[in-house]
Amino acid sequence: MTVEFIDYFWGDKNNGFDVLYHNMKFGSLATKELLDFFREKANIEEQNSRLMSKLVHKASTGTLNSTFAPIWTILRTSAEKLTALHLQMVQKITELIKDVTKYADELHKKHKNVKEEESPTLEAVQAMQTSTAALQKARDLYMAKVAELEKLRKDNASQKDIEKLETKIKKLQEDYKTLLDKHGPIKAEFERRMTQACKRFQEIEEGHLRQMREFLSTYLELLQNNHDMVGQVHSDFKRQFLDMTVDKLLEQFVLNKYTGLEKPGS
Amino acid sequence: MTVEFIDYFWGDKNNGFDVLYHNMKFGSLATKELLDFFREKANIEEQNSRLMSKLVHKASTGTLNSTFAPIWTILRTSAEKLTALHLQMVQKITELIKDVTKYADELHKKHKNVKEEESPTLEAVQAMQTSTAALQKARDLYMAKVAELEKLRKDNASQKDIEKLETKIKKLQEDYKTLLDKHGPIKAEFERRMTQACKRFQEIEEGHLRQMREFLSTYLELLQNNHDMVGQVHSDFKRQFLDMTVDKLLEQFVLNKYTGLEKPGS
Repeated sequence: MTVEFIDYFWGDKNNGFDVLYHNMKFGSLATKELLDFFREKANIEEQNSRLMSKLVHKASTGTLNSTFAPIWTILRTSAEKLTALHLQMVQKITELIKDVTKYADELHKKHKNVKEEESPTLEAVQAMQTSTAALQKARDLYMAKVAELEKLRKDNASQKDIEKLETKIKKLQEDYKTLLDKHGPIKAEFERRMTQACKRFQEIEEGHLRQMREFLSTYLELLQNNHDMVGQVHSDFKRQFLDMTVDKLLEQFVLNKYTGLEKPGS
Repeated sequence: MTVEFIDYFWGDKNNGFDVLYHNMKFGSLATKELLDFFREKANIEEQNSRLMSKLVHKASTGTLNSTFAPIWTILRTSAEKLTALHLQMVQKITELIKDVTKYADELHKKHKNVKEEESPTLEAVQAMQTSTAALQKARDLYMAKVAELEKLRKDNASQKDIEKLETKIKKLQEDYKTLLDKHGPIKAEFERRMTQACKRFQEIEEGHLRQMREFLSTYLELLQNNHDMVGQVHSDFKRQFLDMTVDKLLEQFVLNKYTGLEKPGS
């Protein structure tokens, strides 16, 4: 069952919007990081192909005069196939990189739109934070003065001081009521906008994660196909190698290099 | 059925020994080339481990703030395991290289011994070649003089000239006979020594090829074990990745980043 953002991003500080907005931006960063990761992997495959062709060279310069020559041929063929597989992998990852780059651009544009369209939500959040802070401050001040009044009474202060404070407290009560009246619609607007924004961020996030998982899924498939093909090269190598017995190597040598079947006459 | 060198390295020019001796030396060269090949492969694995640790770094710097973070963890773990596998491969090939190096040294010593111990064979071959050439030359000269004699007779040359040539031919016949008498024991010694040498070179070659195939066999086993372990890393990656659904990613995000479950009061 999917969690609903709308259930989790409220709280005293009203900074759920901030968390969700930054999370969306982190998604864009993650896309760029994934691109970097794939680029590095393509680089590894390219370097591997280069290194492998050095191995092909080593196998090619193996002396063709010795009895061992047919095995050099097998080693060379195998290294050539691996070189080709690394190049193929470079090509396939490059295609994937193109897709991710395209997506990263689209995502960037999408996020710009969201920033614009959600600016009233940001304003509602700020209004809510300001109003909540003002209410809190007014309530704190009121409570402090009430405590002060009780102390004056306990200490048998002058009636004049007591009345002065009572007037002040009444004023604070009125101020608080005014703030509370204004807070009502601010809170309502905040809740309405936050509810919409939560839904939107969740939709964006779900779509983004689905897309990112799809890229990863393609990447995994590339890795596994490549791995299977490398395995095939190894088993071809093994089959050809097992076939090339000592007897067969000696036979090929004799066929290529024999000097004559007849012992000297006369 | 194994071919027998003893059946194939005779022939008019008596250079079977030369072919077999050089083939033995090429075996030493092939060993050094195999060492080079393995060193290059170890180098590839080492560079791969270095490149892979760059990939680990990329996966580690993947922002831990986004919903995608758990997948970075999977990617990093996977890259770490691959780095370790490449290092393990370096280590295993290095062990193999040690064994081949030891064998190459032994082979070098063995070949030095063979060179020494087969020097009488080389002398027998050279004696045979010299003797065969001398016989051939004597026979050619004799045949030329016989042809000359026939021409003199046909042209009714003077009896004096004919007799002079007949004496010369008789002398050539005696020379040839002397050479032939000497050739008998030279040829016998050559055959005796060549027979022994053929057996020895075949023994050396068979042992060498068995040893080289064993090195290759070990190498193939290393490749395949490594390949299996890489396959295991990929399937662990896939399993963990499939487990990390969009719902689970959202859930983890909410657990880490929720701001509060209660809508604002007052």
